[in-house]
Amino acid sequence: MTAISGKNFIAGKRSATGSKTIQSLNATTGEALPFQFSQATTEEINQACEAAAEAARVFRKVSAKKRAEFLDAVAAEIEALGLDFVDTVCAETALPVARIQGEQKRTTGQLRLFAEVLRRGDFYGSRVDTGLPDRQPLPRTDLRQYKIGVGPVAVFGASNFPLAFSTAGGDTASAFAAGCPVVFKAHTGHMATSELVAGAITRAVEKLGLPAGVFSMIFGAGVGEQLVKHPGIKAVGFTGSLNGGRALCDMAAARKEPIPVFAEMSSINPVIILPGALAKRGDAIARELAGSVCMGAGQFCTNPGLVIGLQSAQYDQLLADLGQHLNAQAGQTMLNAGGLRSYVSGLEHLKGHSGVQHLAGQPQEGRQARAQLFKADARLLVESDPLLQEEVFGPTTVAVEVTDDAQLRAALLGLRGQLTATLIGESEDFDAFAWLVPLLEERVGRILVNGYPTGVEVCDAMVHGGPYPATSDARGTSVGTLAIDRWLRPVCYQNFPDEALPEPLKRANPLGIKRLVNGSVTQEPA
Amino acid sequence: MTAISGKNFIAGKRSATGSKTIQSLNATTGEALPFQFSQATTEEINQACEAAAEAARVFRKVSAKKRAEFLDAVAAEIEALGLDFVDTVCAETALPVARIQGEQKRTTGQLRLFAEVLRRGDFYGSRVDTGLPDRQPLPRTDLRQYKIGVGPVAVFGASNFPLAFSTAGGDTASAFAAGCPVVFKAHTGHMATSELVAGAITRAVEKLGLPAGVFSMIFGAGVGEQLVKHPGIKAVGFTGSLNGGRALCDMAAARKEPIPVFAEMSSINPVIILPGALAKRGDAIARELAGSVCMGAGQFCTNPGLVIGLQSAQYDQLLADLGQHLNAQAGQTMLNAGGLRSYVSGLEHLKGHSGVQHLAGQPQEGRQARAQLFKADARLLVESDPLLQEEVFGPTTVAVEVTDDAQLRAALLGLRGQLTATLIGESEDFDAFAWLVPLLEERVGRILVNGYPTGVEVCDAMVHGGPYPATSDARGTSVGTLAIDRWLRPVCYQNFPDEALPEPLKRANPLGIKRLVNGSVTQEPA
Repeated sequence: MTAISGKNFIAGKRSATGSKTIQSLNATTGEALPFQFSQATTEEINQACEAAAEAARVFRKVSAKKRAEFLDAVAAEIEALGLDFVDTVCAETALPVARIQGEQKRTTGQLRLFAEVLRRGDFYGSRVDTGLPDRQPLPRTDLRQYKIGVGPVAVFGASNFPLAFSTAGGDTASAFAAGCPVVFKAHTGHMATSELVAGAITRAVEKLGLPAGVFSMIFGAGVGEQLVKHPGIKAVGFTGSLNGGRALCDMAAARKEPIPVFAEMSSINPVIILPGALAKRGDAIARELAGSVCMGAGQFCTNPGLVIGLQSAQYDQLLADLGQHLNAQAGQTMLNAGGLRSYVSGLEHLKGHSGVQHLAGQPQEGRQARAQLFKADARLLVESDPLLQEEVFGPTTVAVEVTDDAQLRAALLGLRGQLTATLIGESEDFDAFAWLVPLLEERVGRILVNGYPTGVEVCDAMVHGGPYPATSDARGTSVGTLAIDRWLRPVCYQNFPDEALPEPLKRANPLGIKRLVNGSVTQEPA
Repeated sequence: MTAISGKNFIAGKRSATGSKTIQSLNATTGEALPFQFSQATTEEINQACEAAAEAARVFRKVSAKKRAEFLDAVAAEIEALGLDFVDTVCAETALPVARIQGEQKRTTGQLRLFAEVLRRGDFYGSRVDTGLPDRQPLPRTDLRQYKIGVGPVAVFGASNFPLAFSTAGGDTASAFAAGCPVVFKAHTGHMATSELVAGAITRAVEKLGLPAGVFSMIFGAGVGEQLVKHPGIKAVGFTGSLNGGRALCDMAAARKEPIPVFAEMSSINPVIILPGALAKRGDAIARELAGSVCMGAGQFCTNPGLVIGLQSAQYDQLLADLGQHLNAQAGQTMLNAGGLRSYVSGLEHLKGHSGVQHLAGQPQEGRQARAQLFKADARLLVESDPLLQEEVFGPTTVAVEVTDDAQLRAALLGLRGQLTATLIGESEDFDAFAWLVPLLEERVGRILVNGYPTGVEVCDAMVHGGPYPATSDARGTSVGTLAIDRWLRPVCYQNFPDEALPEPLKRANPLGIKRLVNGSVTQEPA
């Protein structure tokens, strides 16, 4: 395997001044991997944050074109990580080789997509209101606006996407695109992976001649608090549990200077199976749903944790079929022992509830997660029972049977905010259940028709967000190009001489970008 | 004067079930006006919030065209408020008639500008990524995104703009434009004014046949807490003091479901006078600056509270001239007795500081505010002395003399976040001090050249925002069309049948709006 030093990345230097170390484990066997990581000290964290604050001044003025080259360079470096790298990720996460290779492509694709965003220039949000010297009763002076980075971003990676939502994942890529340095807190579940990716980023920083403070990465348990509280940090990106995310939000809000946090936290992703589809293709739905529930051992933010259908013989049949598929699933190794413990405990909570029955699934025992199917009384949803609202991270789903449209409506009104909701239906269903769409819009970030929520496309139109507790701020997304907006803020220039204006606002429009000029979108000089 | 009932506006009904009343005062004499207002009860506040939550479901689906008609109707109703109305505002605020007439125009102009935004459709942020069924290794499904309102917004009006930042002011107009109902907390400084404007809004709600819950207004002291904590409220807009704004932010962050707050709070708006301009037109600058400091008794968020210049005979002369202008100013009645007390106390803090000297200004006594000029040691800025960072709301400014560029830089680095910063200079100054712009960009929302920060244009390019404590979230603005973004969140539609898509996302583009389709802006069907 590739050499791993276990040292923190502090603004281009490797540092391990602390005495505490954390062991990397083989996710499949639970045995120690030959890697130990040095927990970042207070001093190291301060150095990283101060270097980021210093680098922000330079980095945000680096042209979007050069920032795009930087993102492309990071992608190329990650692509160049060899088979050893994939082996390391697989050892730390128990995810299969094909999945990691796919995730590697997704990660590089994401970096390159943000490079495209930088080249096309709409992220600037350039707006121009030209002077109206003869306006009565008062003239209007020339006013111009565009968006700049908010400053250094602290990013907390997810356990379940060791590449795409981690060191060089979506939060980091969007922050870099916005011109914001990143101080990354490596997840303890894949520290060797993180070190290899951090090395790739560091090489790209050096190659482009950017300030070293543009990227730092710290290891450790419990070191996130200091990071979020450091005055040099101006925003936070997080993917993980509701408890963890909320704690960071509370810390950020309590700072002397509060800062925005985008935390993607908890979602059970209801799938609603409508009668027309059920009658026509219940078999296929049961099979596809089982595939989505079990994909990646159910360790996806968008895993369908709740299936809702109207009381009928066909729905009973669907649940029976779904149960058979889940019974037939082989056990799957989870990302880490803590994940398995949480899964087992989540299953026990479900089994222990009087309103929940266990429908299918092999006994949960040993080191692997077994797929499970439960059925809960609709009243638990209607009454917003907390048990049903909580994500059980793993290959399980809870079915709910509603008696009629009124109960379906009441059940959905009892749901908390979600990343996704899915409608499985035929065209007659969409006529009869048209009222579902506005109701779901208020509760979720993405509504799917005849698909499954796992598998999140990285593109302009994607929303991986939603009302609390799906995320901490429904106005953002952590996947897709709109993710950059979380790290941008507008600045206005009034009556500026042309030579002092930033490029995206100069009268000649030298970047050739589309701008909102006096209320109309145009590429013309103004 | 117009009849005033003193009752709360609860979703179209007038309600005064509580026993506590609050007296409206004549701002000039301090005497009671013949109006008493019923403090909203817990029950009334709950009714308003619940009606808003209910109305949100309907209002956000009302077409943008009809919402534009609503905003136009509110503007027309406010325009129709007669001279009695202006008299009432003047009595409550001591602001002159011409100012109130101007502010009335500004308020209606603002409403109509948001109507234009709704008609042109860029606020939707429509994005389309069409399906790629043949893509390898996986097809891409059709994905579409646009923005919808976050839900009911609690708005807290400012004392200093009884119309433009109050009942039907920028926060309300932008929330309505976004399709969000508003529960407005009337400022106790101009409750009769608020009642008359709330009546205008209510008539427009009725005229357009909108749900009554689209607008409510409550009176009271200390009732804001319950409003911000109500689960039906999904965002907060506030203009006022740092203490008040921060308290609301803390409450919103501590909710079971935290919600975003945009609070515009505190700014001292530094004006930097560069040597070339000083040499060439020091006289004029002193006169203009005195005008900006004293305008509206200094009761503007963007009042220039800090003047910075490089040590020189010309700068001494400018301060002498400025002092003369301020000495010559007549006393001005402030918005209310509390404002005058705060002003007097702010002056006393300045006078009591060993690093601050009083340069000019008639003795502060009686019922009117007297313009004052102070001079502070540059080290107070360099060391971020809290005294100099705090806004003294009224016609006063503090001058600072720096020895050289290095001290100027250090002084500016010591500044907290600001709404504005101003550079007064000649073209040679902008060459020599080009380094100032990037430094200020990091600290302020708007940078002006050769102008004065008072007078905030309402247009697309305006930013009335800035890093904390100027606002609670540097990513927003409370003036200008971008203000609508604070109340919008994206929703994504995956693989939707065309008939189930919202209008801004339908394949034929029936609204004819510009959309980001597969990475390019176009009006073509897609």
